[in-house]
Amino acid sequence: MSPQDRLPLVEAMRTAIAASTAVLGTTSPNPPVGAVILDVDGVVVGVGATQPAGGPHAEVMALREAGEKARGGCAVVTLEPCNHTGRTPPCVDGLLAAGVAEVHFAVADPNPKAAGGADRLRAHGVEVGSGLLEEQVRRGPLRAWLHYARTGRPHVTWKYAATLDGRVAAADSTSRWISSPESRAEVHQLRRQADAIMVGRGTVLADDPELTARAEDGSLADRQPLRVVVGAGDLPVGARVRNDLAETLHLRTHEPKMVLAELAARGVVDVLLEGGPRLAGAFVAAGLVDRVLLYLAPGLLGAGPAALAEAGVGTIADTVRLQFEEVGMSGPDVRISAVFPR
Amino acid sequence: MSPQDRLPLVEAMRTAIAASTAVLGTTSPNPPVGAVILDVDGVVVGVGATQPAGGPHAEVMALREAGEKARGGCAVVTLEPCNHTGRTPPCVDGLLAAGVAEVHFAVADPNPKAAGGADRLRAHGVEVGSGLLEEQVRRGPLRAWLHYARTGRPHVTWKYAATLDGRVAAADSTSRWISSPESRAEVHQLRRQADAIMVGRGTVLADDPELTARAEDGSLADRQPLRVVVGAGDLPVGARVRNDLAETLHLRTHEPKMVLAELAARGVVDVLLEGGPRLAGAFVAAGLVDRVLLYLAPGLLGAGPAALAEAGVGTIADTVRLQFEEVGMSGPDVRISAVFPR
Ligand SMILES: NC(=O)c1ccc[n+]([C@@H]2O[C@H](COP(=O)([O-])OP(=O)(O)OC[C@H]3O[C@@H](n4cnc5c(N)ncnc54)[C@H](OP(=O)(O)O)[C@@H]3O)[C@@H](O)[C@H]2O)c1
Ligand SMILES: NC(=O)c1ccc[n+]([C@@H]2O[C@H](COP(=O)([O-])OP(=O)(O)OC[C@H]3O[C@@H](n4cnc5c(N)ncnc54)[C@H](OP(=O)(O)O)[C@@H]3O)[C@@H](O)[C@H]2O)c1
Repeated sequence: MSPQDRLPLVEAMRTAIAASTAVLGTTSPNPPVGAVILDVDGVVVGVGATQPAGGPHAEVMALREAGEKARGGCAVVTLEPCNHTGRTPPCVDGLLAAGVAEVHFAVADPNPKAAGGADRLRAHGVEVGSGLLEEQVRRGPLRAWLHYARTGRPHVTWKYAATLDGRVAAADSTSRWISSPESRAEVHQLRRQADAIMVGRGTVLADDPELTARAEDGSLADRQPLRVVVGAGDLPVGARVRNDLAETLHLRTHEPKMVLAELAARGVVDVLLEGGPRLAGAFVAAGLVDRVLLYLAPGLLGAGPAALAEAGVGTIADTVRLQFEEVGMSGPDVRISAVFPR
Repeated sequence: MSPQDRLPLVEAMRTAIAASTAVLGTTSPNPPVGAVILDVDGVVVGVGATQPAGGPHAEVMALREAGEKARGGCAVVTLEPCNHTGRTPPCVDGLLAAGVAEVHFAVADPNPKAAGGADRLRAHGVEVGSGLLEEQVRRGPLRAWLHYARTGRPHVTWKYAATLDGRVAAADSTSRWISSPESRAEVHQLRRQADAIMVGRGTVLADDPELTARAEDGSLADRQPLRVVVGAGDLPVGARVRNDLAETLHLRTHEPKMVLAELAARGVVDVLLEGGPRLAGAFVAAGLVDRVLLYLAPGLLGAGPAALAEAGVGTIADTVRLQFEEVGMSGPDVRISAVFPR
């Protein structure tokens, strides 16, 4: 395709990103990938996304929809097509069999076992392009999985809601609600997209949260992440987190590393750590928080627990340093995302 | 002027705003006003701003520069021209004498003694318009003075630098530096524009700050705000705040109301409250903070003082509620301004 035809490619990649975003939380430990097939005229003839583990990959789903129209056309995929036989045959084979003339992907496969897809396509005369909307995919739908592929550890987003003075609860430990309904709705969406939500036992004792993902009307979302409570002590018999609306795992440890190893063994790739301050502090101290997501409410408390405790920092020179990657509004609150410099 | 000629008026108002911003901190208790004179052809022939108390007002400065070219022209002023003889004659007289045909201002004069300028101009056949860039002027150069005119109290901006977890110092009470060089340079500019900078005695003991306004090269700014330390105890003999680079006022009280009364009596209109947590808490509890300005640094501490203490809030329902009015970047930090809903 010539440069002036690039816009359809960018739009196809946006569609592929949207398709992959829609399956977040359902594919782990496989990557949530999106794929779009354009026919010879650049018309979208197939859209697909990764199916739950053991099911077809995104390219296969999109090719199925496209059928014969894929021949001579173009595949646009968020991740380099795999060249590896796992529970399903390599996607590269499917693309070659369908006779696509071009493949464009956003992010190269970091997994040495699955990589080599681009080379094999090229060897069969397919034109291959890479890097299209790469940053958007890296920071978006593939963020957690890419981290997991690189480190072997689940990706941890520490999410919290705080006032302007950094409090996550009032002096009497009431904390409902610090943030706005808009922010809470966003968090329910994040829960739906995560593999697991995690809190310390202190939060269960203080707030008795249910830790489910709900729609704005209060109904349960179509899927529920694994609920994880960390702490040596028992959970109260009547604790809501023990109800049967979702699965719950109680890990009787204080070791963040052990928590993540246990979660990885269960196929968890994307963890939403919802606090409180001591569990978050232990994860920060262990270097196991990968992203900080703050819902900053325009309020002041002047007392009550600060967002983070016991993170192992004693003096200003040892401040744990991140960088802001996104600042936006969520209703009346400010949403702030920070990550560690690469 | 017809609607299609409005752009020159807007640009003239922007120039007037810039002129008034340049004199912030030098005019109290008079308002920092900016004025621009356009000749009959809409060409800028005079720019002026309020001179220090007792000196000429903005309109007079601009008219002096314009001279005869003002005749038949237009005056663009950030505040309604005064109709009141104080230490200087009414500005309305000057505008009438100069023969301007039109006057446009942003904000009506809230001071009943000085108001009536627009009416008197109209009575003399001058075309008068109001409301041009009004919000920009209200939130910008005239913010503090308008508050002072309405309430009789100086306007208080509580400014602080905190980490993502709301700490203003580390566990060992080191706090240099929480925020970036860019943010610190901004704060020195804010100091230069304020009438007074205020801290509690605890901050003097902990940090020994000099509380001067400096340029980026470290040299003293051309003007220095009054330094105010609040607290019953003594200030250490060698405290930097006691040096002779600027005036210092030590108020041996714990009553925010008395502090502001004392400052108002000294002609202070715009106060920058630079903390620490307990003095800020006392001002918040007294309802005497008007704006919160947070430099949020992308760091985590997990220990050390939180930004605000003892603000009189015991439970979440009593959260002191503000609203965000501006969120932006300051180097690697996020700058957040919040005010109370009107
Ligand atoms: N606004 C928000 O976003 C938000 C979110 C969550 C919580 N909160 C607030 O946070 C407060 C609770 O604070 P918290 O610190 O008690 O909550 P927490 O961090 O959720 O729970 C603390 C507990 O976690 C366990 N734990 C696991 N690993 C640990 C480690 N390495 N070090 C220390 N403890 C570890 C311990 O349980 P065992 O004692 O069983 O060993 C400990 O008692 C409540 O007021 C709640 O409202 C606010
Ligand atoms: N990052 C930032 O932006 C920032 C800014 C400032 C300070 N800080 C940090 O804040 C810490 C100091 O905290 P702090 O709370 O001691 O500072 P502070 O609020 O500046 O000073 C407290 C003192 O203020 C006096 N005070 C006046 N009115 C009061 C009232 N109504 N209630 C209580 N005290 C009143 C008292 O002095 P007397 O005892 O003499 O009566 C009290 O000891 C230091 O670690 C410093 O680094 C950080």
